[in-house]
Amino acid sequence: MSAATLEQLLAAFAPVGRDPAGGWTRRGFSAHEERLRSMLEAEATRRGWSSSIDAATNLWLWLEGPGEDALVLGSHLDSVVCGGALDGPLGLASALAAIDLLRARRWRPRRPVALVAFRDEEGGRFGRACLGSRVLTGALNPSDALALEDDEGVSLAAALDSLGYDRRTFGPDRNLVASIGSYLELHIEQGRQLAPHGRAVGLGTGIWPHARLRAILPGRPNHAGTTPMHERDDPVVTLAHLVLEVRRAALARGALATVGRVEVEPNAPNAIARAVEAWVDVRAPHEDALDGLIVDVERLVTPTEGTLTVASRTPATAFDAALSSSIAAVVDAPRIATGAGHDAGILQDAGVPSAMIFVRNPTGVSHAPDEDATREDRRRGVEALARAIEVLT
Amino acid sequence: MSAATLEQLLAAFAPVGRDPAGGWTRRGFSAHEERLRSMLEAEATRRGWSSSIDAATNLWLWLEGPGEDALVLGSHLDSVVCGGALDGPLGLASALAAIDLLRARRWRPRRPVALVAFRDEEGGRFGRACLGSRVLTGALNPSDALALEDDEGVSLAAALDSLGYDRRTFGPDRNLVASIGSYLELHIEQGRQLAPHGRAVGLGTGIWPHARLRAILPGRPNHAGTTPMHERDDPVVTLAHLVLEVRRAALARGALATVGRVEVEPNAPNAIARAVEAWVDVRAPHEDALDGLIVDVERLVTPTEGTLTVASRTPATAFDAALSSSIAAVVDAPRIATGAGHDAGILQDAGVPSAMIFVRNPTGVSHAPDEDATREDRRRGVEALARAIEVLT
Repeated sequence: MSAATLEQLLAAFAPVGRDPAGGWTRRGFSAHEERLRSMLEAEATRRGWSSSIDAATNLWLWLEGPGEDALVLGSHLDSVVCGGALDGPLGLASALAAIDLLRARRWRPRRPVALVAFRDEEGGRFGRACLGSRVLTGALNPSDALALEDDEGVSLAAALDSLGYDRRTFGPDRNLVASIGSYLELHIEQGRQLAPHGRAVGLGTGIWPHARLRAILPGRPNHAGTTPMHERDDPVVTLAHLVLEVRRAALARGALATVGRVEVEPNAPNAIARAVEAWVDVRAPHEDALDGLIVDVERLVTPTEGTLTVASRTPATAFDAALSSSIAAVVDAPRIATGAGHDAGILQDAGVPSAMIFVRNPTGVSHAPDEDATREDRRRGVEALARAIEVLT
Repeated sequence: MSAATLEQLLAAFAPVGRDPAGGWTRRGFSAHEERLRSMLEAEATRRGWSSSIDAATNLWLWLEGPGEDALVLGSHLDSVVCGGALDGPLGLASALAAIDLLRARRWRPRRPVALVAFRDEEGGRFGRACLGSRVLTGALNPSDALALEDDEGVSLAAALDSLGYDRRTFGPDRNLVASIGSYLELHIEQGRQLAPHGRAVGLGTGIWPHARLRAILPGRPNHAGTTPMHERDDPVVTLAHLVLEVRRAALARGALATVGRVEVEPNAPNAIARAVEAWVDVRAPHEDALDGLIVDVERLVTPTEGTLTVASRTPATAFDAALSSSIAAVVDAPRIATGAGHDAGILQDAGVPSAMIFVRNPTGVSHAPDEDATREDRRRGVEALARAIEVLT
């Protein structure tokens, strides 16, 4: 029955935000995210639960409560551009399925229980990951958030208006955050740590520290057909050196570095570019390694007369040891750390005891259409989540 | 008087298409190009000349004629994105000024004389350089041209409609081309060959062969925060190697190669890219060197499982020797070849005896706001052009 709930819900979600270029594009604050929220809310309403929207526009579905010391099961419904179907939705569909499973077993929780769908976790539209949980907890100032703009120059404030939300009340809700006794998030594995162990489910230990760096590499614009090679100052060539050296630096530090976004100006086939903007995503197993990697990148950019800005920096997060131990007592699973950010990390950093369960991703592919988990592993994820909910309530 | 004509016209042109990002953006088939054409036409009308639009939408201004064995003075009014003010307009403004100068000297031409403003020389909107002269001469099939699309998916056919031209009559005019006895184009120097000689004016010998190559570099999209460095197939890293190796190959062959346009998909800061599209502009002093360089680039792209397409290829052009000799008899100027394409090259290739006069560009900067020529050199360009017109008429 629970497995049916999960698969039916995922099948119902599947047509929403299909991208002709491959996979799914369900950006935060988009009609696609709104559609998935409505579908999830309809499932909750059908079960007699109450729903509400918090001040940061996250969607709450209460089976019991609201009330103090709640167990909150959460994830997100938005995706990156051309992402997978499970990153986010698997957590919420599994939570619904786990509760159906427990209800069938005549489970009666002794504390309030809720599902929460956090808004715009990927940061795909306004460039700030975990936007909904950051604003709710106060980690991101609402006036700073409202001024953020998407690629078309639309501000978050204008996006809220057009979706029918009130920008004046947009902000944190510290009482609501304080009422969360434990936060538990199930998520498709990103990376490939479980497959080599032959295990379907893992328990999160924490999140690597992470930074996004923005490099501006200047050059001397000129005609591609008339400027001798040795008289050029071509920022695309500077970019090429940077990409290869950043990769070497990350390998040397056992860290991760990615240049995933590049803007060439003016981007004309017959013009030596004027400037290149390159975003460097850096993550490392601990703060010292990340600091070292950021210094490495700075040392590469400075001699080019370019500038490097730390656009965002997220410290390492260790999930709550006591909460994880309680879950480990009923869920036999390897402990894994992740380089990916999650709303669970934002809540943990805000003082909410938080934990995560990961479901095996056999290829390790994430943020891309090939992301997947077998039907059997998804079922085991629901089972593990149900056992965790049972022991925590 | 002639210098005044030139400077007044350039000053009148200056506000049109100023780009907030720097320089001028006057794309082919844009309102800016139309505006400059109207301004030039008004000057001609004021002098009692007749004007007409040919089947390829180029603007003709006849002082004498139309008629057979015409001397045609031409250039273009469009620019690249964020280009300089003189690339194109200097040629037409100088032609007008040179004729004013000759008229003041009671010059009476013995053959028809016209100015022509060729449409969309830079190919900035539809990706085909010298679009107006190619269609007029039949070098580009009108149905192929009409199907070209700009970055927003607007076809040339639709662009003609919205500017009020008739797409049904769009095409070549072989009688008009056959009536051109000699074509002479004055152009701001691109590159820096005249400054080391201390000379204000140069005479063109020809145009290097040129190709535009489009490389598609595939990768395996994945999550930037969870994919180990050694398990990645990152097309941005592939691009970096390509850019550096293409540069080495061009240096080895005494040729030019430029990666000026790059598109990363999906271009998200936290995603290892799915694919990169890179345009490689290649030019060389002779056909063999260009062939060799194209093979070099193919050998770099093939092992990445990428594809390389020759999007366009333009053979070398030698300007008309007899015409250039006639000009050299009255204009003492060094002979220079250029890697940049010009409408003069299209006409020469169509059998029209053609020649070019270049005006010194002290920095050599082209296709960028710093392109310039001193007022004194511009005046000397007008003088040289006037002497050439006089000897040819």
